[in-house]
Amino acid sequence: MTDPIQLRFDLARQLATSGGALALSHFQNRDRLVIEAKANPHDIVSRADREVEDLIRAGIAASFPQDAILGEEGGAQTGDSGFLWVIDPIDGTSPFLAGLPHWCVIIALVQGSETVAAVTAHPLSGEVFTAIKGRGAWLNDAPMRCDPAHRITNSLVAIGASHRTDAAHVGGVITGLMQAGGIFYRNGSGGLMLASVAAGRLGGYYEPHMNPWDCLAGGLMIVEAGGRILPMPTDPAGGVALGTAPGVWDDLSAVVAKAPPDPQARRA
Amino acid sequence: MTDPIQLRFDLARQLATSGGALALSHFQNRDRLVIEAKANPHDIVSRADREVEDLIRAGIAASFPQDAILGEEGGAQTGDSGFLWVIDPIDGTSPFLAGLPHWCVIIALVQGSETVAAVTAHPLSGEVFTAIKGRGAWLNDAPMRCDPAHRITNSLVAIGASHRTDAAHVGGVITGLMQAGGIFYRNGSGGLMLASVAAGRLGGYYEPHMNPWDCLAGGLMIVEAGGRILPMPTDPAGGVALGTAPGVWDDLSAVVAKAPPDPQARRA
Repeated sequence: MTDPIQLRFDLARQLATSGGALALSHFQNRDRLVIEAKANPHDIVSRADREVEDLIRAGIAASFPQDAILGEEGGAQTGDSGFLWVIDPIDGTSPFLAGLPHWCVIIALVQGSETVAAVTAHPLSGEVFTAIKGRGAWLNDAPMRCDPAHRITNSLVAIGASHRTDAAHVGGVITGLMQAGGIFYRNGSGGLMLASVAAGRLGGYYEPHMNPWDCLAGGLMIVEAGGRILPMPTDPAGGVALGTAPGVWDDLSAVVAKAPPDPQARRA
Repeated sequence: MTDPIQLRFDLARQLATSGGALALSHFQNRDRLVIEAKANPHDIVSRADREVEDLIRAGIAASFPQDAILGEEGGAQTGDSGFLWVIDPIDGTSPFLAGLPHWCVIIALVQGSETVAAVTAHPLSGEVFTAIKGRGAWLNDAPMRCDPAHRITNSLVAIGASHRTDAAHVGGVITGLMQAGGIFYRNGSGGLMLASVAAGRLGGYYEPHMNPWDCLAGGLMIVEAGGRILPMPTDPAGGVALGTAPGVWDDLSAVVAKAPPDPQARRA
């Protein structure tokens, strides 16, 4: 019980679950939430977002005050333990505020430059997706695996986008995916879509630009579930995210490579 | 209580709910379902699909034996009452079989050439979306409305596609939507996405080609919820489907018009 990763993983799971319950209470009363625009109407932050991050930050500070924290809302806090917590309090704020079901709470634990533990909680379904580096990935308490039968032609392939991504590049990826015999999916929560690849529900996920708090957790889950990823961006400036079931990798990589280039891809 | 539309609407709601419960029991045991390929790996029909349609057909035949029926699985049955039931027993078979939440049971009632009643049941959430022509639209027992504040720039806009649709057209619509400041969504169930427009959760829905059993119900819901649609295809060969919140109509119509034309659009 003195394993520093396991101790933090247990806390992360607990905080993602309690943060998720707090978010769910706001979701069920979202008409009363005060909504404030951040960068544009799609990129909104609600009071729920801030409250959930505050709850998670307080829980970390109480148990591991020497750990560093990077959160979507509250920015960076330094530490000298060698551990960094990366938090997205509500991934999928657009679906959340529209009353759609796909939003989640994400916590990734980074040691040095490696993601070593990950939790993605989906409060509406009660599902919690987790992984520990080198030890496996789980959906609630059952091991989860990418689907080894998934190909680009027989699975849903999720494509992420935001107003940070180039429109012609994204449209070209969609066209190429369909020409390759595939079909696209996008539910508005990149974190849940990455976790769904690890759970064998989606064949793959590509987004031209994600932030670390959106994708580090899901990246570890896919690796531990037997899939393949490009190294997920650890720099707060973000970068490309690609993760797939093993049988989808080559074809989806080719689709992305053939699309009109994203002029902003230097951020990768 | 002798209103022929209301009587059939009440039965449709009951049959969609009981059909949904049957489908849900299969969903929770889907690993054991025998899956057979129909046109391609994305277009599958499971035993659940057939059983749900059989249940609905039997319920209609017991109460309204003179009504005609058009179902996705079982084909057409003639009748001489002037009423036609149009059934999609499980819309969203790809999400259903992948373990994703977006699939539903759809029943539309057509009188002459007009859709007069509609039910879309989402068993996983317990939500039932309904409409009666000229009388309104409801989510469970509450009236539902398109969101009058929705614009292409502040709502999720759903884009449907299948292997019947042209890849370059769909990719061009995605590019144009993003260039107009919007963002796309696709959860794999066109019926649920249309109902979600009527419920004020999505700003609009476009799909180059849908079949009547996928879209007639949602089309009525959007109209009764204060939105706009192109007339939905009643011919079993299908056609274009477009429905939006009022503030999204002009911009989404322009995006579709500017995309590379769909060479198969003559089916509209």
